[in-house]
Amino acid sequence: MTTPLSTPDPAARALLLDAVHFDAHGLVTVVAQQHDTGEVLMVAWMNRAALAETLATGRVTYWSRSRQELWRKGDTSGQVQKLVDIRLDCDGDTLLALVDQAGVACHTGRHNCFYRALRSNQLVALTEPEVDPKVLYGPKVLYGT
Amino acid sequence: MTTPLSTPDPAARALLLDAVHFDAHGLVTVVAQQHDTGEVLMVAWMNRAALAETLATGRVTYWSRSRQELWRKGDTSGQVQKLVDIRLDCDGDTLLALVDQAGVACHTGRHNCFYRALRSNQLVALTEPEVDPKVLYGPKVLYGT
Repeated sequence: MTTPLSTPDPAARALLLDAVHFDAHGLVTVVAQQHDTGEVLMVAWMNRAALAETLATGRVTYWSRSRQELWRKGDTSGQVQKLVDIRLDCDGDTLLALVDQAGVACHTGRHNCFYRALRSNQLVALTEPEVDPKVLYGPKVLYGT
Repeated sequence: MTTPLSTPDPAARALLLDAVHFDAHGLVTVVAQQHDTGEVLMVAWMNRAALAETLATGRVTYWSRSRQELWRKGDTSGQVQKLVDIRLDCDGDTLLALVDQAGVACHTGRHNCFYRALRSNQLVALTEPEVDPKVLYGPKVLYGT
């Protein structure tokens, strides 16, 4: 095993692209995990073009289902994800992206998106925003998985 | 914050169930992560009944899209997942289940499902099965996300 390549060569990229089972909408589920701490940051979706761009650039790019466009994570907010490694699951319908997250992953300004949980029989926020979303996105928040 | 409850009371369970945005197929994406090591084990789906059962029993139960039935993880294989905590993401369409996995999570007999990656420009398996799937499932493997 050699060191993972964040930008493997075109033939290798094609091997991975062809192994993914994109769903009826042409999408694959992607879990983004901080590579060194193991924190699960977010879940989003890629189409083939988004995965191809991610592999070619080493910069994680999703498909925004709400905006119906490529979503180069951090283009608006500056909170980019650098790809460290990417893993495909047993049945080919989910990817695990090991990333290096700049700043915060969540559009609410929290470090990760999984902050709601049951405590004392209430659904509460376990963490607070580290950054005001208006600072990340301006007054009109444009984001979306 | 008190200790997470793997089996919160019925009113609390309803709070979480009602906060989830199930998709057009009535499903929510679930990432299962080993609670103590941070290992991402698998991704699968739950419908409302599966989530309700998971919360009521503390035993992780998915909806098998391929078999179109509730999938009490480990019923066939013995590789059960005990729920430690469950987190809902910012937009309510993904859950992070922190679990305690007995044995292996993957139907291939590997500890987790994310074992394929690009190395030396080949798509390779990073890990080998720890258990023969025939031991887990018998000669006719019945599983499915």
